[in-house]
Amino acid sequence: MAPTTQIDSSLKNGYQSNGKVKNNNSCSVIKCNATLAEQKISIRGLVGKLLSSPNPDKEILSLGVGDASAFAAFREGRDVSRCIMESVNSGTFHGYPPAHGFPFVRRAVADYLSWGVSQKFNEKDVFMTVGGTQAIQVILTVLANQGCNVLLPRPGFPPYEATCEINHIEPRYYDLLPNSNWEVDLDQVRNLTDSKTVGIVVINPNNPCGAVYSRSHLTKIAETAAELNLPLIADEIYGHMVFREAKFVPMASLCSIVPVLTLGALSKRWLVPGWRCGWVAISDRNGALSQVRMAMERLMNVTSGPASIIQAALPGLLSDSNDEFHSNVVKLLESSEEALFHMIQKIPALICHSRPQGSMFMMVQLDYSLLKGIGDDMEFASKLMKEESVLILPGTVIGLENWIRIFFGTPPDLLKEAMGRIMSFCSRYA
Amino acid sequence: MAPTTQIDSSLKNGYQSNGKVKNNNSCSVIKCNATLAEQKISIRGLVGKLLSSPNPDKEILSLGVGDASAFAAFREGRDVSRCIMESVNSGTFHGYPPAHGFPFVRRAVADYLSWGVSQKFNEKDVFMTVGGTQAIQVILTVLANQGCNVLLPRPGFPPYEATCEINHIEPRYYDLLPNSNWEVDLDQVRNLTDSKTVGIVVINPNNPCGAVYSRSHLTKIAETAAELNLPLIADEIYGHMVFREAKFVPMASLCSIVPVLTLGALSKRWLVPGWRCGWVAISDRNGALSQVRMAMERLMNVTSGPASIIQAALPGLLSDSNDEFHSNVVKLLESSEEALFHMIQKIPALICHSRPQGSMFMMVQLDYSLLKGIGDDMEFASKLMKEESVLILPGTVIGLENWIRIFFGTPPDLLKEAMGRIMSFCSRYA
Repeated sequence: MAPTTQIDSSLKNGYQSNGKVKNNNSCSVIKCNATLAEQKISIRGLVGKLLSSPNPDKEILSLGVGDASAFAAFREGRDVSRCIMESVNSGTFHGYPPAHGFPFVRRAVADYLSWGVSQKFNEKDVFMTVGGTQAIQVILTVLANQGCNVLLPRPGFPPYEATCEINHIEPRYYDLLPNSNWEVDLDQVRNLTDSKTVGIVVINPNNPCGAVYSRSHLTKIAETAAELNLPLIADEIYGHMVFREAKFVPMASLCSIVPVLTLGALSKRWLVPGWRCGWVAISDRNGALSQVRMAMERLMNVTSGPASIIQAALPGLLSDSNDEFHSNVVKLLESSEEALFHMIQKIPALICHSRPQGSMFMMVQLDYSLLKGIGDDMEFASKLMKEESVLILPGTVIGLENWIRIFFGTPPDLLKEAMGRIMSFCSRYA
Repeated sequence: MAPTTQIDSSLKNGYQSNGKVKNNNSCSVIKCNATLAEQKISIRGLVGKLLSSPNPDKEILSLGVGDASAFAAFREGRDVSRCIMESVNSGTFHGYPPAHGFPFVRRAVADYLSWGVSQKFNEKDVFMTVGGTQAIQVILTVLANQGCNVLLPRPGFPPYEATCEINHIEPRYYDLLPNSNWEVDLDQVRNLTDSKTVGIVVINPNNPCGAVYSRSHLTKIAETAAELNLPLIADEIYGHMVFREAKFVPMASLCSIVPVLTLGALSKRWLVPGWRCGWVAISDRNGALSQVRMAMERLMNVTSGPASIIQAALPGLLSDSNDEFHSNVVKLLESSEEALFHMIQKIPALICHSRPQGSMFMMVQLDYSLLKGIGDDMEFASKLMKEESVLILPGTVIGLENWIRIFFGTPPDLLKEAMGRIMSFCSRYA
């Protein structure tokens, strides 16, 4: 996408070109930001469109959006309401929170993130954000001037691209390798980097692939970033949500190799995505990120952070009162993934190359030779909705055509029914 | 401010200029967004700096920041905790809210804003935002490409300027006239407008001047905007907070003359600024804002909105259960303003030209002939803090040198003590 350095001529309608204004009594159409007017469809936009045409005879089953909080089974044993109640009842958190978050909240997040990290975080390393989405916006805005570029994984998470578009930053995509546990193609990372590259985004545990990277692979990523003099943007929204033998290694544990900006949120692990509460944490040595830190402080001084009453609930939420709940959720996800994996084996048109080890998603390739009359993943998704009322995310919207993303953060019954419908659907087109 | 179309050369440190990267083992300093690095000081930044050097022998008294929620007197009879508790207890608002807000919440805001407006709002006109701050960011991002300009009041509210800076929009200032009830200088508005102007911001009831505009003045503003084919951005954060005979007239009641984007929030009237919950509402005729509406829908699809559990409390909050509380707050503010106005009369060095009729602020001019040894408003503010531990906002930070902004949303006792100290301070420098 080329940065808009001049105002689109279409925006000048209603004005005379000599800079003087027309004198008319009623306003004609008011024009607006050309970048937004031309913006590509978002996940939310696409999902809304798909959901508008289900099979009226079948109830909609969603394997499309990453929100397990809708299901009672996932909420069992959760101790979140008490924490927010205490925060509201205290009556002391209705006023403005400090721009970077309450100090005691930043400290609680710093302690939480210091798990497995030798250079511990302190409260000034943490900035509270309005969910993971604002964390992405803050990091990219802080690192990049317009015309800069940032390296993003493909397949990936569309809000990175959308933020780039709005801020006139160029997104450059490195591939995740489907036959190597979706690891980062590091040669490509090297080839994509130039003097205007500002950082590398790494999502681990991975959305949308479900990969969990080993310490050895993460070390190679960190060494490559150091060699390129680029900070790592470590998206750990699904931190700790790993299955079986997989281990979650926080990128910050490698900050002696390269500076790291870690982003996280309550959304996934606590299953309260609607609370919109996340964070950015800075790990560096010798002040390598000192200017970034200063820019972040300034940006957060003029933007809205997460709600005070929700922030104040964090120390309770991050304490061990939810340990059992967390391990229950992981067990549920593990068994859902297991069920999904075995069902996928029974559908010849769907291929899973690397089995998920974490997060809530599996990427599945479509074999068109076994799907007569279906031309691409968008058509697969829309026909599946029209005929079977099952929502999945077409890979095109996350950068990988001919694949689909399946969300498995659902109760096993629902997952089985949805997969049964997908199986019938694929059989009909075989 | 000139838009940054090229990357600042200082950002290239650490990279070779031929586009190939240096090969080094440890990262050197990572550079960042030049606009942010150079950003002017914000209210929060300045306040933090002032608060760091009080007189250690005197307790700090703040007439600096617009947050009355700290004082029990202002919270009496408030029915806000119950609404949020019901929302949390229902257990149904922990998941992602729709990108533009819950439909039932948008509808409640639409009904609330339809007071005094003949063309009623409907739910699709309303977009929920993370406080007034995000409402400002959304409106400016949607209306302006980089290089466009927007007309802002002087004195004004600095987040508008900060948002302009980050988005490479040029802020242009029209004066508010201190001797004419701080009305808008409409000739200046006409002279400042050119082909790249995208809108006019009008704050009513006014922060920082306390002015409340008459229907006749608002009509003149609307007619001028229509003549210039510009939408009005009506900042009504202090809506309904008016004193004595003053009447609050919503700008949307004039949308037959000109398209209006109204912004508001719970922050001030409900005294819960920490909840970060606001809105933007669109009023137009014949679809004059149809492209703006579409761009807003797209932008909100990729940004974080306010927390679901807080949104869900809105219908309760906006109902009449808080009517008595609202009128108590206005009575308290009225009496605080009264006390402040009379105390100001007794301090010869401080001049109030137009008495506040609403909001929580008074602008006061400094007479340096009666303040020997004080060179400007910044010095006034910092000496006042160092000697008397009283916080006021120097006018420079809101665009009006040689003035100060005094916040009167405080209990009368505190206000009297603070003003007593300001009186001693001014006497010492007389």
